[in-house]
Amino acid sequence: MNGDLAAIDCDIAVRFVETDMMGVVHHSNYLVWFEAARVAWMDAAGMPYGELAAGGNHFAVTAVEVEYRTPARFGDIVRVRVGVSQMRSRQVSFVYTVRNAGDGTLLGTGSTEHICVDLSGRMAKIPQAAVERLGVGMARLTQRNRELSASGG
Amino acid sequence: MNGDLAAIDCDIAVRFVETDMMGVVHHSNYLVWFEAARVAWMDAAGMPYGELAAGGNHFAVTAVEVEYRTPARFGDIVRVRVGVSQMRSRQVSFVYTVRNAGDGTLLGTGSTEHICVDLSGRMAKIPQAAVERLGVGMARLTQRNRELSASGG
Amino acid sequence: MNGDLAAIDCDIAVRFVETDMMGVVHHSNYLVWFEAARVAWMDAAGMPYGELAAGGNHFAVTAVEVEYRTPARFGDIVRVRVGVSQMRSRQVSFVYTVRNAGDGTLLGTGSTEHICVDLSGRMAKIPQAAVERLGVGMARLTQRNRELSASGG
Amino acid sequence: MNGDLAAIDCDIAVRFVETDMMGVVHHSNYLVWFEAARVAWMDAAGMPYGELAAGGNHFAVTAVEVEYRTPARFGDIVRVRVGVSQMRSRQVSFVYTVRNAGDGTLLGTGSTEHICVDLSGRMAKIPQAAVERLGVGMARLTQRNRELSASGG
Repeated sequence: MNGDLAAIDCDIAVRFVETDMMGVVHHSNYLVWFEAARVAWMDAAGMPYGELAAGGNHFAVTAVEVEYRTPARFGDIVRVRVGVSQMRSRQVSFVYTVRNAGDGTLLGTGSTEHICVDLSGRMAKIPQAAVERLGVGMARLTQRNRELSASGG
Repeated sequence: MNGDLAAIDCDIAVRFVETDMMGVVHHSNYLVWFEAARVAWMDAAGMPYGELAAGGNHFAVTAVEVEYRTPARFGDIVRVRVGVSQMRSRQVSFVYTVRNAGDGTLLGTGSTEHICVDLSGRMAKIPQAAVERLGVGMARLTQRNRELSASGG
Repeated sequence: MNGDLAAIDCDIAVRFVETDMMGVVHHSNYLVWFEAARVAWMDAAGMPYGELAAGGNHFAVTAVEVEYRTPARFGDIVRVRVGVSQMRSRQVSFVYTVRNAGDGTLLGTGSTEHICVDLSGRMAKIPQAAVERLGVGMARLTQRNRELSASGG
Repeated sequence: MNGDLAAIDCDIAVRFVETDMMGVVHHSNYLVWFEAARVAWMDAAGMPYGELAAGGNHFAVTAVEVEYRTPARFGDIVRVRVGVSQMRSRQVSFVYTVRNAGDGTLLGTGSTEHICVDLSGRMAKIPQAAVERLGVGMARLTQRNRELSASGG
């Protein structure tokens, strides 16, 4: 995932309740981790999701894709790298890579697509103030990632 | 559980996602089953929860207790018997017994306490129309249970 | 979805816990409903998942896709139509359509891909006995669906 | 909660998925947070739960109680204080206090009781090595808490 996606890493400790009788994490939890990483991304971008919601808008999920490579296990810390693959006036898409934070093993990848909705659930433009804050935040994250990359980070 | 609690039975198929790496159902799911049984009870009592919510009220949970006896497993149908142990102007309490529907094994017991709240989350009287419908429904369920009991059911 | 997919319908009552603060069902629950429908399909096909698991095999999820059309709400009964789009010696894929059982509104569609694994989590051939039972079951479901279709069902 | 319970604090960010259509956190999540705090406690006590499980033992939940005071909301960091109220050869009990980490508001309290089980699910003695590690860890946490308390921390 390159810096142009304004990506961040979000570490999550696997919860016991997230496992199933196969002894590994149930696949549905990747969507929950994606969401937690998305929320952390919005914090990092300077546009906390709670503020967007308080203003009467939500990013409703319209599509998800996940590919599972290696099972996650209780005791693992998973590192979700989340970035923005597309942002339009009414839509935003995120991409995700999930790795074991300890040894870097690739656990899975995925993407989610969202539309901005208002309180009645109808598609709406992302509010202009949010667009501006997200633009500034994404530019800052991209710049940070390029510097990290240039310094071998 | 006697008929005076206006109890009903609600059968629920254990979901795979509800198991954990111990190979049995995770204990948190009992609260979800209690809730599903409570919702079924309100349907049976003639006061569907969705109508209460649409009118701007909720039964917020203020306390829960669960005792676990025998683990539930994937493949089991669990039978939750739910009844009302107390109903006041602003509060309602339910009691639960969970059994394996196949062989009758006792899986657990529990109780939940609720207060009626309005849209702002403040304690409120249960709306009079709901009280009346619940009263009629409970009388009907109690009568039905006494008849079932009298007929050896 | 045509009869050749050996599809069945599985009705599921939306649980209150499945909603989120947007007032509708959280998107992650579609994966849980898909799974419940898959389990019901295996029952209908004569090869209950619990028996496969008891024999030491699981169908591990390797990929999922979901497209969301209309939000599901508390109080809805959702009807998940699940069928098999591909079955190979080590892999199986399912497709899903989710509708409101009351008015038929399309809520979403999706697919899941699975590999057969053994107790150690390694890819394995689907046991021959299971393959045979699934083959008989799928033929029976396909035949039933064709008859339903021919009779206008 | 006093230092003699060998308590620790565990901070947890509320997940969006944990909310429900009442706009606040669904009550079942308190059991999940208790568990996450318990797991963090075992790490802090020097006896990680994963090692206990790898050795063939689990602390199966036999009872839970929760009292809910103030709803938790998306955006909150909840601080779960977890301590041990009783430890016997085959049983262990934990107590919990949940506060808003930002303003200290009491959100709820609870307790859980556990028995040690072996791989077959039968009650078993907590392995001697685990008892010793837990004893050392609890003494250390209690000592730390007394020092924090004495220094006004």
